[in-house]
Amino acid sequence: MIETLGVIGGGQLGRMLTLVAKRMGYRVIVLDPQEHSPCGQVADEQIVAAYDDRAAIEELGHRSEIVTYEFENIDIGSVEHLERCGHRVTPSSGVLRITQDRLLEKTFVRGCGIATTEFAAISSALDAEAAAARTGLPAIVKTIRGGYDGKGQWRVDSVEAVRRAFEEARGAPLILEREVDFACELSVIAARGGDGVIVAFPVAENAHDNGILARTIAPARIEPNLAVRAQEMASAIGRGLGIVGTYCVELFLTRGGELLVNEIAPRPHNSGHFTIDTTPCSQYEQHVRAICSLPLSPPRMFCGGVMMNILGDGNGNHLAGTEALLADPTIVLHVYGKRHAVARRKMGHFTMLVDGPIDDAVLALASCALGKLSWR
Amino acid sequence: MIETLGVIGGGQLGRMLTLVAKRMGYRVIVLDPQEHSPCGQVADEQIVAAYDDRAAIEELGHRSEIVTYEFENIDIGSVEHLERCGHRVTPSSGVLRITQDRLLEKTFVRGCGIATTEFAAISSALDAEAAAARTGLPAIVKTIRGGYDGKGQWRVDSVEAVRRAFEEARGAPLILEREVDFACELSVIAARGGDGVIVAFPVAENAHDNGILARTIAPARIEPNLAVRAQEMASAIGRGLGIVGTYCVELFLTRGGELLVNEIAPRPHNSGHFTIDTTPCSQYEQHVRAICSLPLSPPRMFCGGVMMNILGDGNGNHLAGTEALLADPTIVLHVYGKRHAVARRKMGHFTMLVDGPIDDAVLALASCALGKLSWR
Repeated sequence: MIETLGVIGGGQLGRMLTLVAKRMGYRVIVLDPQEHSPCGQVADEQIVAAYDDRAAIEELGHRSEIVTYEFENIDIGSVEHLERCGHRVTPSSGVLRITQDRLLEKTFVRGCGIATTEFAAISSALDAEAAAARTGLPAIVKTIRGGYDGKGQWRVDSVEAVRRAFEEARGAPLILEREVDFACELSVIAARGGDGVIVAFPVAENAHDNGILARTIAPARIEPNLAVRAQEMASAIGRGLGIVGTYCVELFLTRGGELLVNEIAPRPHNSGHFTIDTTPCSQYEQHVRAICSLPLSPPRMFCGGVMMNILGDGNGNHLAGTEALLADPTIVLHVYGKRHAVARRKMGHFTMLVDGPIDDAVLALASCALGKLSWR
Repeated sequence: MIETLGVIGGGQLGRMLTLVAKRMGYRVIVLDPQEHSPCGQVADEQIVAAYDDRAAIEELGHRSEIVTYEFENIDIGSVEHLERCGHRVTPSSGVLRITQDRLLEKTFVRGCGIATTEFAAISSALDAEAAAARTGLPAIVKTIRGGYDGKGQWRVDSVEAVRRAFEEARGAPLILEREVDFACELSVIAARGGDGVIVAFPVAENAHDNGILARTIAPARIEPNLAVRAQEMASAIGRGLGIVGTYCVELFLTRGGELLVNEIAPRPHNSGHFTIDTTPCSQYEQHVRAICSLPLSPPRMFCGGVMMNILGDGNGNHLAGTEALLADPTIVLHVYGKRHAVARRKMGHFTMLVDGPIDDAVLALASCALGKLSWR
């Protein structure tokens, strides 16, 4: 009988996960170093501690029947320690190990028979030339571990630039990835239960702005056969990982019509927020169901959706314009309770519900809606 | 700028209200005498105090920009005190005064030109005969104040029984209401903004079991013109009350096709739970929007719904059978986090999402789904 869920990480993903878990009657304890974290504000309790604080992690394990995490850049040693102590952690440390490491991850995806962008490891400045020869240029240098929202990434167009990036990274292991001339960026949100059942949401289409997700359109405006293929790839990856929980597979659709896997996130994902407002069982509920051994729900969309991230701009911490925004009955607003609206920080999002096709006029409306908001 | 909502009352209605308010980014402080109340478990903070504890009520007023309540049997003196101190309370004490008092309420409804059941006040045993003559028998004796879920009610079929009920009530002021031979029980969930705009959800059809709501069907299976008339009656009542917030008007549809108002609740209502899962903006979000001076959202249903209350049976505090229940993808489950599943206590509910007509086969499925659950 699972009564209490432990969540490592107190950001907005943990918050939205907790709101669903509470609705379903679970107690939630979150571990995060920052007091009054977005997730801690809605959880039953927050343990304020670093992610690698073994005593705190053990306490979380003791006090919950199952532990999960809301982002993958947590201390894997802590997760392994919990597992060794006999606590259930889902997804497992094995999944985490692969998805924390861009090199392992891409190698794993290829091992599943699925295409990725061309890549090469760089472990010394001497590797730069060979790596660049393998991937071609321009390419993207990324740290193998850590980094998100475009942090720890450098676009390079010469071997010299690769070497400079290596110096800038101060010895952190790097991966070089060929820059893809994509037609669009896609993601598939899926969930896998402990019984091996996998459900995949309709494919989402993403637009980034300087490495940060700006907009998601669901369902993606792509050929049905490509959408099915992307879902199959996500299923194969979930099966291969043996993950239990919600996960996200990000892909590029090249101009040549090829699907290349870019990244896996072993958790609910920003590009799956649309599922909260457009489906009866969101990516968060699928995650709760998966980790609590409840049956997953075959996804069904009430309507289409355009999700727009609301970023801080550094001009103030009070969101203004919600009155104008909410005059549009197609808008559902989510605000994360972060105190400081630092520039480009994810502060909230909204979903615009769309019944017909999602065309340029709809996207213009969504941008216009976002423009009604400001920080004061 | 409203940042913090104060909620008097920590039950499931406050909990569901808080889950929405948190999603929208508000802080929530709840006041309830019971520690770890269902609402307190999801709020930022709970003030543990009696509803008539003036110091605690003042603290709630000081620490929130607006105070609301999740049930109407709270101390009106506390609400008036808050108002005198200059705090905003919504709905106002004026609305509360009318809706706390069955006699004032029915008189008010008639004053709006809207039909109610026949009624008569009983302030002494001597009134019994005249009251019974006015309403006819059988009738229902109800306490004028307090009482919910069928508590404080007696069905009577003789003047003698009316007198006995009066004695049993130990001098509490009573109202006698003619028993209506109804075709069905209906409710309209509506919300009124501070700007006077009123929105009404599709009419719901309710089935009670011994005074406790058992099932709600939405939309109600009645003629469209009757549904429109019921919504108009609810709007007229909201306008007359000048209420700001979500409210519920319960009605009887008589076998003769007449609509009679039975009761008003100045708050979100059990029979409006269906709005969480079948519409983009639930009765709870409409309430938050109304009290925070945000625009209301014209209701729109993604699909129909059958809401079934999950009651305790006194056999245990652990809900069993959720795995079987959730194997049906049309079910959305809500559990309130109450520790003790006392017999007939409201512990949770589920909504069955229905795309086609809600016929007997669908209702049988909903009952069957409820039958999968038990307490251990």
